[in-house]
Amino acid sequence: MPTLATREPGGAPGAERLRALLLSAEQDWSPSAEVLLHFAARAEHVARTIAPALAAGTWVVCDRFYDSTMAYQGYGQGADRAMIATLSGLIGLRPDLTIVFDIDPAIGRARLLARDIVADRYERLDAAFHARVAAGFRVIAAAEPERCVVIDASASEQDVARQVADAIADRFALPTEAP
Amino acid sequence: MPTLATREPGGAPGAERLRALLLSAEQDWSPSAEVLLHFAARAEHVARTIAPALAAGTWVVCDRFYDSTMAYQGYGQGADRAMIATLSGLIGLRPDLTIVFDIDPAIGRARLLARDIVADRYERLDAAFHARVAAGFRVIAAAEPERCVVIDASASEQDVARQVADAIADRFALPTEAP
Repeated sequence: MPTLATREPGGAPGAERLRALLLSAEQDWSPSAEVLLHFAARAEHVARTIAPALAAGTWVVCDRFYDSTMAYQGYGQGADRAMIATLSGLIGLRPDLTIVFDIDPAIGRARLLARDIVADRYERLDAAFHARVAAGFRVIAAAEPERCVVIDASASEQDVARQVADAIADRFALPTEAP
Repeated sequence: MPTLATREPGGAPGAERLRALLLSAEQDWSPSAEVLLHFAARAEHVARTIAPALAAGTWVVCDRFYDSTMAYQGYGQGADRAMIATLSGLIGLRPDLTIVFDIDPAIGRARLLARDIVADRYERLDAAFHARVAAGFRVIAAAEPERCVVIDASASEQDVARQVADAIADRFALPTEAP
């Protein structure tokens, strides 16, 4: 089946420009402004990339969506969670399946370093921040078990891929196949 | 009394960066993204500039606020007006007095030209757009007569200034003085 892999913030030209503003350390945004910028990028991404793909029958796999704003800005940075929930509703699009990769933040950080990935503004925040984000994701997933699947990402890459394939097959009643 | 004159989009460093994105013709935003960008700039402006000034007892005079998003994006560009109203509520700040300068768009445009002001992305839109914006401002003002005062801006600069001074004196029960 046709599949599109995309990511947030970004995934459309205007949204990528906002990604640069959000992930660079040049600008320190107020909590509400930062939330609204993420949703502006998301609205652009949905309008230009996701909605047209879905309308064409393409499966869309997106690296992060509104749960990340709730976890990072809401639980992590203390932005107004009711406001984030309201904005999530205004987007007019709900994922059919959300996969949450759960991992000890220290292991996640070690993997970034091993892969020589330069940490962005969020990744540079402290351990307490990342613990709040991880706890937030668990709360979000527990509140919508029919949409969210939590996967233990401390396992090997092959094992994680198998868990993801199983979750997709299960959610969409597809025949299971090896990744 | 201490007074701060500021403007939107802009009025704080991050908000001015968003102003550049919004008013340049480089990027064509989807309607929802454009609305959310205006509110992101506004949230930053409120958090960094307006709220601290009000807390210090300063009167804030702002050139445009959320009514302009409703008029330009909602009435002018057809963005979701219920969404704009929701976002306006989330800002958590309501002007004590809003002055709407009503003028035939053709006269407004002639004045811009006479002052050698380079038209921004909105000012370059067509006459039908500006007619919808002007009609939108009239609807907004009529819906909240206790907050909004409509002033005939086709009069002379001196006459318009006098009307503004009268509206402020009236709203805040101040002694009237010549501008």
